[in-house]
Amino acid sequence: MFSVTVRDHMMIAHSFRGEVFGPAQRLHGATFVVDATFRRPDLDADGIVVDIGLATEQLRAVLSELTYRNLDDEPAFAGVNTTTEVLARTVADRLVDRVHAGELGAGARDLTGITITLHESHIAWASYERSL
Amino acid sequence: MFSVTVRDHMMIAHSFRGEVFGPAQRLHGATFVVDATFRRPDLDADGIVVDIGLATEQLRAVLSELTYRNLDDEPAFAGVNTTTEVLARTVADRLVDRVHAGELGAGARDLTGITITLHESHIAWASYERSL
Amino acid sequence: MFSVTVRDHMMIAHSFRGEVFGPAQRLHGATFVVDATFRRPDLDADGIVVDIGLATEQLRAVLSELTYRNLDDEPAFAGVNTTTEVLARTVADRLVDRVHAGELGAGARDLTGITITLHESHIAWASYERSL
Amino acid sequence: MFSVTVRDHMMIAHSFRGEVFGPAQRLHGATFVVDATFRRPDLDADGIVVDIGLATEQLRAVLSELTYRNLDDEPAFAGVNTTTEVLARTVADRLVDRVHAGELGAGARDLTGITITLHESHIAWASYERSL
Amino acid sequence: MFSVTVRDHMMIAHSFRGEVFGPAQRLHGATFVVDATFRRPDLDADGIVVDIGLATEQLRAVLSELTYRNLDDEPAFAGVNTTTEVLARTVADRLVDRVHAGELGAGARDLTGITITLHESHIAWASYERSL
Amino acid sequence: MFSVTVRDHMMIAHSFRGEVFGPAQRLHGATFVVDATFRRPDLDADGIVVDIGLATEQLRAVLSELTYRNLDDEPAFAGVNTTTEVLARTVADRLVDRVHAGELGAGARDLTGITITLHESHIAWASYERSL
Repeated sequence: MFSVTVRDHMMIAHSFRGEVFGPAQRLHGATFVVDATFRRPDLDADGIVVDIGLATEQLRAVLSELTYRNLDDEPAFAGVNTTTEVLARTVADRLVDRVHAGELGAGARDLTGITITLHESHIAWASYERSL
Repeated sequence: MFSVTVRDHMMIAHSFRGEVFGPAQRLHGATFVVDATFRRPDLDADGIVVDIGLATEQLRAVLSELTYRNLDDEPAFAGVNTTTEVLARTVADRLVDRVHAGELGAGARDLTGITITLHESHIAWASYERSL
Repeated sequence: MFSVTVRDHMMIAHSFRGEVFGPAQRLHGATFVVDATFRRPDLDADGIVVDIGLATEQLRAVLSELTYRNLDDEPAFAGVNTTTEVLARTVADRLVDRVHAGELGAGARDLTGITITLHESHIAWASYERSL
Repeated sequence: MFSVTVRDHMMIAHSFRGEVFGPAQRLHGATFVVDATFRRPDLDADGIVVDIGLATEQLRAVLSELTYRNLDDEPAFAGVNTTTEVLARTVADRLVDRVHAGELGAGARDLTGITITLHESHIAWASYERSL
Repeated sequence: MFSVTVRDHMMIAHSFRGEVFGPAQRLHGATFVVDATFRRPDLDADGIVVDIGLATEQLRAVLSELTYRNLDDEPAFAGVNTTTEVLARTVADRLVDRVHAGELGAGARDLTGITITLHESHIAWASYERSL
Repeated sequence: MFSVTVRDHMMIAHSFRGEVFGPAQRLHGATFVVDATFRRPDLDADGIVVDIGLATEQLRAVLSELTYRNLDDEPAFAGVNTTTEVLARTVADRLVDRVHAGELGAGARDLTGITITLHESHIAWASYERSL
């Protein structure tokens, strides 16, 4: 199995509902360093998993819809805690939509899986892994 | 599949028996930067894999039983080489015991796997992965 | 010259005023991974720059006054852009106040300088360096 | 499942054929920080996955056949784009050959998998995973 | 003293002349992860050292003149070993030229120093520091 | 001012005397990831600060006298706490001795400073800086 990973980041504000979150129930924020991993069992004719230029560009496009925002005000997250786990799934699902829409190139149709990892600090991160 | 990882560390002395270990047969030591990864297929009602506060606290509790010690003197490791691999399994098993004892919260009963990675330097690390 | 550095982090929301900040004028947030460096020309009788336990504890105390908050609502920052640079100075000044108050131990009276570095992402960080 | 990883690097020149590569069609170069991960379900009698000294030595031997070279001139890569993905597979396959030749020691016959990750920058890396 | 650092990278081919370079006399390559640090004693009215957007953009512009090239073919380096040290100075000098040309904004006229660090691997890096 | 840094590591056991050290008064251990930085104002005729091959080799030689040992048993440290700070000075002084003995090459006579940084974990490190 082959994989390629590209890294970018986003900087957001949000708050959580639920006693389990303690002081994070207050409005605060986070930098998420985001790793997007693309997987497939074989390489294409060029010897690659995915066009890394398009992968970088499309990850940036997905993150640009989230970064520099207060996620508490985003309709897409109404009634949802925007935990690191939930955001990892959101980024993965939106990236998969872009794969299906052809925005990562024709070769990306052979991708079989995507993993998104969001690093929230030097001591905590979360991942969501799904198939295509 | 979702996962959450928290990082902590321990600083121990030990020695190894067996020619394969070369100079590491002498009493020496290591800092292990420890990553504990918790996995489950779905999120709970709060949108999380595990209460990250409890996960951090319980990882620290497990490491506090090992850190600042000479492992050659610990009864738990009598007759065992405390290699990075063995210590990864020890930390994983003890953390799973705490999950089963309810110390990571009721939601942790839906965890399906744990991976422990011990970084012994910038150029070497070991992992142990198990199900719950 | 000797130095010792300890690392911790904080997670805050804020917004900036000024066209130079572009989309960061919107309410957003950041994780700041914070490195506090303590300097002195000679070691004390124990062979250390500072009691690293106290240094870690006092850095945490300073960050606990800032983390999990919307800095736009903090009176201490009224009329001030809480840029990475400004926050580095704030952390440094508050830590120096604690040194002077004796909270880092008697030996800390021989510290001659402090540098605070705030990492806002994997590709950007800022520092403030001052003498004591 | 247990794993052990060792890290080394290589510094090579190369160029790519195919419009997908854009400016990387020109002769350029890369440092690849290489992580070699060895996997097996159980530890050997010494409590290890593999002799880490031999693993380090054999990874270095594999990389020494590639580093400080222009890969465009290497017969082994004639007609092949030496992408990060292709090089990850090359390193993995050559390391497996060495396992089979006994150069990682008798205990290495119980290895069940190898993953090679090549980091080409702080924001991009690729992996190849195979069984033995 | 305040500083701000931004990180980017370049991927180049080159070779060295001189026995001190051993196998690096052959055509090979490197990824240089580049940190550009800007210094000044006081912040501007916005509370910043430099417009980080412009700093990032201008560092990228400087690196775009070097990346994806064989530096042995660049007239600017005729007769010069393009060591990590020399390239650090080149990037610093070209960035200072851009500061003086006003491309980092009017506020950048108060910068007093720049340091460029080039990381050539996980175990080696070089810096060049100069005043403005 | 130019600098070049190389990284290596050592793994030692030791204990401390003094109440300030708390649980670290017990026999324990550490991995120290060691960065050795060499400084000089101008480059030599080859365009380098120091022969990086020799620098790496001599740092390794210095660390080989310390690694895989219990420092409590080393005569060189009798009556001395082998804190991270003290060990940084020891490595620096021994490396300077080797510079003066010509073991880093003739060009190394123009070095003006050395800094040694010992990373004891992902959240703590210490440095010692001296002139030559």
